[in-house]
Amino acid sequence: MLKQEINELLTQTGPGTPMGDLFRQYWIPALLAEELPENDCPQVRVKLLSERMIAFRDSEGRYGLIDEFCAHRGVSLWFGRNEEGGLRCAYHGWKFDVTGQAIEVPSESENGNFCAHVKLTSYPLVKIGDVLWTHMGDPDKRPPLPEFEFAQVAPEQTYISKRWQECNWLQAFEGGIDSSHVSWLHAGGLKNDPLFKGSKGNEYNLADFKPFFEVAEADGGLFVGARRNAEADSYYWRITPWVMPSFTMIAPRADHPVHGHWWIPIDDENCWAYSFDYHPTRALTPTEVENMKAGHGVHSENIPGTYRPTANKDNDYLMDRDAQRRGEYFSGIKGIAIQDSSLQESMGPIVNRSKERLVSADAGIIKARQKLRKAALALREEGVVPPGVDPQHHRVRSAAVVLPRDESFIESSRDALTAAPGKPHATV
Amino acid sequence: MLKQEINELLTQTGPGTPMGDLFRQYWIPALLAEELPENDCPQVRVKLLSERMIAFRDSEGRYGLIDEFCAHRGVSLWFGRNEEGGLRCAYHGWKFDVTGQAIEVPSESENGNFCAHVKLTSYPLVKIGDVLWTHMGDPDKRPPLPEFEFAQVAPEQTYISKRWQECNWLQAFEGGIDSSHVSWLHAGGLKNDPLFKGSKGNEYNLADFKPFFEVAEADGGLFVGARRNAEADSYYWRITPWVMPSFTMIAPRADHPVHGHWWIPIDDENCWAYSFDYHPTRALTPTEVENMKAGHGVHSENIPGTYRPTANKDNDYLMDRDAQRRGEYFSGIKGIAIQDSSLQESMGPIVNRSKERLVSADAGIIKARQKLRKAALALREEGVVPPGVDPQHHRVRSAAVVLPRDESFIESSRDALTAAPGKPHATV
Amino acid sequence: MLKQEINELLTQTGPGTPMGDLFRQYWIPALLAEELPENDCPQVRVKLLSERMIAFRDSEGRYGLIDEFCAHRGVSLWFGRNEEGGLRCAYHGWKFDVTGQAIEVPSESENGNFCAHVKLTSYPLVKIGDVLWTHMGDPDKRPPLPEFEFAQVAPEQTYISKRWQECNWLQAFEGGIDSSHVSWLHAGGLKNDPLFKGSKGNEYNLADFKPFFEVAEADGGLFVGARRNAEADSYYWRITPWVMPSFTMIAPRADHPVHGHWWIPIDDENCWAYSFDYHPTRALTPTEVENMKAGHGVHSENIPGTYRPTANKDNDYLMDRDAQRRGEYFSGIKGIAIQDSSLQESMGPIVNRSKERLVSADAGIIKARQKLRKAALALREEGVVPPGVDPQHHRVRSAAVVLPRDESFIESSRDALTAAPGKPHATV
Repeated sequence: MLKQEINELLTQTGPGTPMGDLFRQYWIPALLAEELPENDCPQVRVKLLSERMIAFRDSEGRYGLIDEFCAHRGVSLWFGRNEEGGLRCAYHGWKFDVTGQAIEVPSESENGNFCAHVKLTSYPLVKIGDVLWTHMGDPDKRPPLPEFEFAQVAPEQTYISKRWQECNWLQAFEGGIDSSHVSWLHAGGLKNDPLFKGSKGNEYNLADFKPFFEVAEADGGLFVGARRNAEADSYYWRITPWVMPSFTMIAPRADHPVHGHWWIPIDDENCWAYSFDYHPTRALTPTEVENMKAGHGVHSENIPGTYRPTANKDNDYLMDRDAQRRGEYFSGIKGIAIQDSSLQESMGPIVNRSKERLVSADAGIIKARQKLRKAALALREEGVVPPGVDPQHHRVRSAAVVLPRDESFIESSRDALTAAPGKPHATV
Repeated sequence: MLKQEINELLTQTGPGTPMGDLFRQYWIPALLAEELPENDCPQVRVKLLSERMIAFRDSEGRYGLIDEFCAHRGVSLWFGRNEEGGLRCAYHGWKFDVTGQAIEVPSESENGNFCAHVKLTSYPLVKIGDVLWTHMGDPDKRPPLPEFEFAQVAPEQTYISKRWQECNWLQAFEGGIDSSHVSWLHAGGLKNDPLFKGSKGNEYNLADFKPFFEVAEADGGLFVGARRNAEADSYYWRITPWVMPSFTMIAPRADHPVHGHWWIPIDDENCWAYSFDYHPTRALTPTEVENMKAGHGVHSENIPGTYRPTANKDNDYLMDRDAQRRGEYFSGIKGIAIQDSSLQESMGPIVNRSKERLVSADAGIIKARQKLRKAALALREEGVVPPGVDPQHHRVRSAAVVLPRDESFIESSRDALTAAPGKPHATV
Repeated sequence: MLKQEINELLTQTGPGTPMGDLFRQYWIPALLAEELPENDCPQVRVKLLSERMIAFRDSEGRYGLIDEFCAHRGVSLWFGRNEEGGLRCAYHGWKFDVTGQAIEVPSESENGNFCAHVKLTSYPLVKIGDVLWTHMGDPDKRPPLPEFEFAQVAPEQTYISKRWQECNWLQAFEGGIDSSHVSWLHAGGLKNDPLFKGSKGNEYNLADFKPFFEVAEADGGLFVGARRNAEADSYYWRITPWVMPSFTMIAPRADHPVHGHWWIPIDDENCWAYSFDYHPTRALTPTEVENMKAGHGVHSENIPGTYRPTANKDNDYLMDRDAQRRGEYFSGIKGIAIQDSSLQESMGPIVNRSKERLVSADAGIIKARQKLRKAALALREEGVVPPGVDPQHHRVRSAAVVLPRDESFIESSRDALTAAPGKPHATV
C-alpha cells in the first residue's frame, strides 16, 4: 500500500517533477537506430518524459533531438524538410541544426546575427548498439555514455525491439522485477515459446509456486533473487538485476539468449517498453532472430509501420478463451510480452497503489520503490547523483544458478552477475 | 425547470451519493442470464452505479459479482481463469470465490491464514427469470428477492433484452413514463410494428393528440394515467405503473404481449435499458419471439456480440430522411426503442433541466422526480426504506382500458393494475 | 510573443467573451446555400461561436437559424420534421417557425396562448451569393447586409467551398494575411496548381525570399503589402486586404480568378474555412470550376457528404515523403489549402503564443492582433462599433502590382484595392 502522494511522486516524470528530474540524470533510449536509417531520412516525432520533440539525422549523419515546434510561430517541424545539414520548417523556411541552433531565417536580412539568438531546446542523440540514446538533463552534469552489455556486444549477438505500452512506466517496470508471476502468467510460454522453452530451470519454475525472495543491494540498484526448490539439497535461484531507473534483465534459460526490458516514460500514462535479447558468447542464430522478429520471447508483434502491438487494449489483446481453457495461455493472451502488457494496462493508466496488498514475494518491488523515492529526494534536496548514472553500474547480468541450500545467492553469484566481454552467462 | 443542484442529486448514482444510496436499496438487474450461460464460462465485466465489477459463474453454478480488480496489485480479473470453484487472477494466481473471499494465495506458506484477511467487495448475484439480479447495498438490510411478474411467469411466456444507452438514466426513465410522445414519435410504429400494430387503442392514440394526465400514488411508486377520447361517452386510459427507482410498464395493445423498460445506471453518463415482453396467460408465439430478437417492439437490433444498438449516435442512428418524409418513421429513425434512445441521447449525456419547460402532460415526470428526491433525502436523513423495495410493490401491471367518462381511472382499474398468476391483462 | 491573457482574449469567442461579442457585431457565413437546397429540405446542425443551432428552410423558403434544442425537454431538433411552415420536434410535436417562435404545442388546449410565451433563441439567416449569412448579436444593432464582391457578382463568376479546420480561428486567419510563407510552403503549388500557375508574379515570388512588409490602415481593417524585387527599377507588390474580423483576399495571379478565405469560429478549438474564387469581369470557365470542385487552388477535396478534408490530422494529411524529397510539395502535403491547414493544426488546438518569436515579416499579424484587441475592448468598454461592420468596408480587393521602386504601394493602389462592378482586377 502506498500513500497517494508517494504514488504521484513515483509516477510523474514531466519537467520539474522529482522523478522527472531523476530520469533526466540518465542516458535513456530515445528511439531505435532503425527509425533514422540514413542521412537526411524523414524526421521522427518523439515524446519522452512528457516533452514533445523531433529526432532527425542530418546530411552528415549527425543525430539531433530538438523541440518539436518551430521557434517562429510554433508549427510542428515534423512537416519540415530534412536537407543540407538541418531541418527546415515548412512554413517560412527557418532552418535548425541538430543542436536546435537556428542556422537560417530567410526573411531576415541580417540572417546570421538574428540566428545567433534563436535556439530550440535540444538534447544529444547518440548511437550505441541499435539504440539512439539521449540525456535530457543539465549538460554540465552529463555523465559518460552508457555501457550496458546488450549494446556493447557485436551486432550479430544482439537484437532489440520496442513497443508502446499504454500505462505508467512504474507498473510496467514493477512487472519486470517480479519473477513470481512467471510460474503463472507465463506458464504456457515456458513450455511453448521457442526462445524460452526447454530448460531445466523451467521445470523448477513450474514445480514450485512458492518462491522465496531475497533482495541484495547493488551499486546501480538491486539484485532481486527468487529462490525455488531444485534438487533435495539445492535451490534454483533466478537473479534479476535492476539498474536505476528502469533497466532490468531476466534470468536466462539453457543456452537461449538472455533478455531484458527497459521502460521509458512517454508521458505519465504511456511508456516505451524496450526489449532486448543477446548472447554473450555467440551470434544469434537466424532462427532466433526470426523468432524475435515474429514477436516471440520478450518481443511483440507490432502493427506494421508502428510500434503499437497488434494485440492491444482496443481489441482486448485478442483474448482467446478457448486457448485459456485448454491451458495454452494462462490468461488467454498470446505472447509473453503481451501477457505482461495486457495485465499491466488493465490496472488503469496509473494504478491506485493505495488499494494494493503486497506480500513477501513483492520484496523486490517494495525495495525498488523505496530506493527510487530516496534517490529522487536526495537529488532534489542535496543534489546527490543517483545510483545507475555511473557506467560502471551498467556492467551487470542476470543469472540462473543452482546453489547448495546453505549458500548465499549474492555471495556465490558475484562473478555471474558481472558483465565481461566473452564470459559465458550463468544459466540453467 | 429544475435547479442544477436538484438535477445533480437525481442524476448522480456513484458510491456515497444520495441517489446512489437509493439505488443500492433495491435488487436491480446486473446482467442477463444468457451472459453467464454455463458453469465455469467466461467471466463478464460489469459496471453499475459507477462501480467496476466482474460477474462469474463458478464450477458449482454459483453466481458472483465481485470487484473487477485483484486485491494484490490491481490487475483486472477479466483476464483471470474461472476454474475449480473460483476466479484465479492471471498474474500471480490469487484465487477468489463468488463472495470475493480469497481462497488461495499460492506464494504464501500460511495460505489459509493469509486468505482469511483478504476479501474483495462483492454483491450477491441471483437468477430470477432470465435476469441476474444484484443488491449493492448494506447486506444487513437486504430485502427479499424481487417479484416482478415478467420474471415470475413460465419461461415460454417471457422475453427480455438489453441495450446500452449513452445518457444518464433519468432522462431515459422519464421517457418511459411519458405516454404522450407515443402519438408523435411512435406514430409509425403503432401502424407498422408487428408487436404494436392492430389494436383499437392505437386508433384512439392516433386520433387524440391532447391526452390528459392524471397521476395516482402507488405503494411502490406511481400510476400515470393518460386519458384520450374513446367513444362519445367514454375515455381510453393508458396506465403506466412506475415502481421505484426505474421500473416501468407500457400499457398493452390487443392481445400483444405486454412490455416495459427498466433503466439501470452504468455510470452518470450511461445506462442499461432492459426491455421485456411477456404474456400473462399464454406462451409467446414463435413469430413474436422472432420479432423480438429482430429488434421490433421495445427491443433493439444490437451489434453482434455486444449490447450496443446497430443504430447509435456514431452513425446518427441510421437517420433516413426519405422514410421521415414519407411518414414511415416520424423522426426518420427506425424502431421504437431506437426512436426513444436517439432523442434521449440527443439531449446530451446529462440534460440541463434548468432550461426545460414542462407542461401538464409532464405531470408524471414532475411527480416522479419529487418522489425520487423525497425518498433519497428521507433515506439519507432518517434511514427510511423507500417505496419499491418491498416485493409486494412489484406486483403491478400496466393496463389499457376504456371507461365511462365519469369514472375514476384508478378506482376502476385497481384489479387490472395488480399482477396475479394466470389473470388476463386489461388491454384494448 | 503574446501574454497568455491576451491570447485568451483573442482566441475565445463563446457567448459573453470580448472577442465573442466582437464577432457578434458582424454578418458572418453560417453555412453554404447548397446545404439547404430546397424548401422543407432536411435541417442542418450548425455550431458557431460555441453555440449549437439548427438551420432550416421552411415551406415558403424562409431560412431560420434557431437553438438546436427543443424548449420543452431539450431534445435535438435535428430529429424533427421540417414541414408546413415550421420545424416540429419529433418527441411531442412542438413546432417552431424560422424565428424560433413556438407555433404549436399539441398537448395544450390553450395552444395559441401558451405558444406566445415560448420562443427559442434565433438568428436571422439570409442568402447572399452562395452563402447563408447570420448575425448573432443584438437585433437592435443589426447592421445592413454584407456587400463583399465575391457574393455580389453574377453566379457564373463565383465559386465558394468550405472545410472544417481543427484549430482556433486566429492561427488559421493569421496564415491568411501572411504572404511570406507562399514562397516556401506553396512553392510547389505556384508551379503546378492549375489555378495558381503561369504568372509573372509567381516568378517574382520564387526569386525573392526576403519580402519586405508594409501595413496600411483600411476603414474595415488593414492592407498588408508584401514587396518583392521585380525588375531592376521596380517592385512586385502583393496586397492582402483584411476586413475585420477574419475576411481576407489573396493577391491575384495573371488572369486566374481571385480568391480568399474567411475563418469563422465553430468553437475555440475548431473553425470553418470558407474559400472563394471569383472573376470580376468574366464567367469562370468549366475547367476552372472543375478544378475548384476537385480541391485545387484554395479549395480542398472533402470526404463525400461532409466538409472534412480527405487529408486530415487523423491520417497525417496523407504525408508523402517522396513527393517532399522530389520537391513536388515542400511539406510533403498535397494541395494549397491542406498545406495551410496541416501546419496551422500542427500548432495545437490553440497555439501558445507566449513561445512564439515574431519577425518583421509578421508585421501584418502583429498589427491585426492589436487592432482586434483594441476593437474588442472599445466595444466592451464604450460600445464602439468596430471596423468592418459597415458594408462600405467590404468593397475591397486584393491586388498584385508592379510599381516603380519609389512609389507608395498604398497611394498607387487605392483604385485597384476598391471593388467596383465590372472593373478588371489588378493582377500580375
